[in-house]
Amino acid sequence: MDTIVIVGYIAGILTTTAFVPQVVRAWKLKETRDLSLAMLILLAAGILLWICYGFWMESLPVIAANGITFILILVLLGLKIRYK
Amino acid sequence: MDTIVIVGYIAGILTTTAFVPQVVRAWKLKETRDLSLAMLILLAAGILLWICYGFWMESLPVIAANGITFILILVLLGLKIRYK
Repeated sequence: MDTIVIVGYIAGILTTTAFVPQVVRAWKLKETRDLSLAMLILLAAGILLWICYGFWMESLPVIAANGITFILILVLLGLKIRYK
Repeated sequence: MDTIVIVGYIAGILTTTAFVPQVVRAWKLKETRDLSLAMLILLAAGILLWICYGFWMESLPVIAANGITFILILVLLGLKIRYK
């Protein structure tokens, strides 16, 4: 595999898994006050468009990475609304 | 411009500007306790790789969107360290 493709995959894995510790923290501590609701809504909307983009381009990495991130952002949105 | 390219640009603008309200909130309230430090570090590392990917692919939208996001994440990291 090309070095740059590997760099792209590692970049995707990092920016996707980044939201896991945030979900764990919000879930455990039941605290989301310092999370911006506007950030979560904008991220959800943007990531949904990235998924559309991925389907259109038939790019499985784009669909997969953004699909997982979208679920994590939805969980954070739910926690934000529940524990605001 | 193709519809899908416009969708990609809107997606990029949304996921980049998403961090602006988070920076504003953390800056104004001086509160970052509920932000996960691990999330910010993973995002910074991942976005830095996306910028490398953008330079390699000579993709200005990828460089620009991730460059702006990287600065916003660095500001959040600074605020997190200052007001933890």
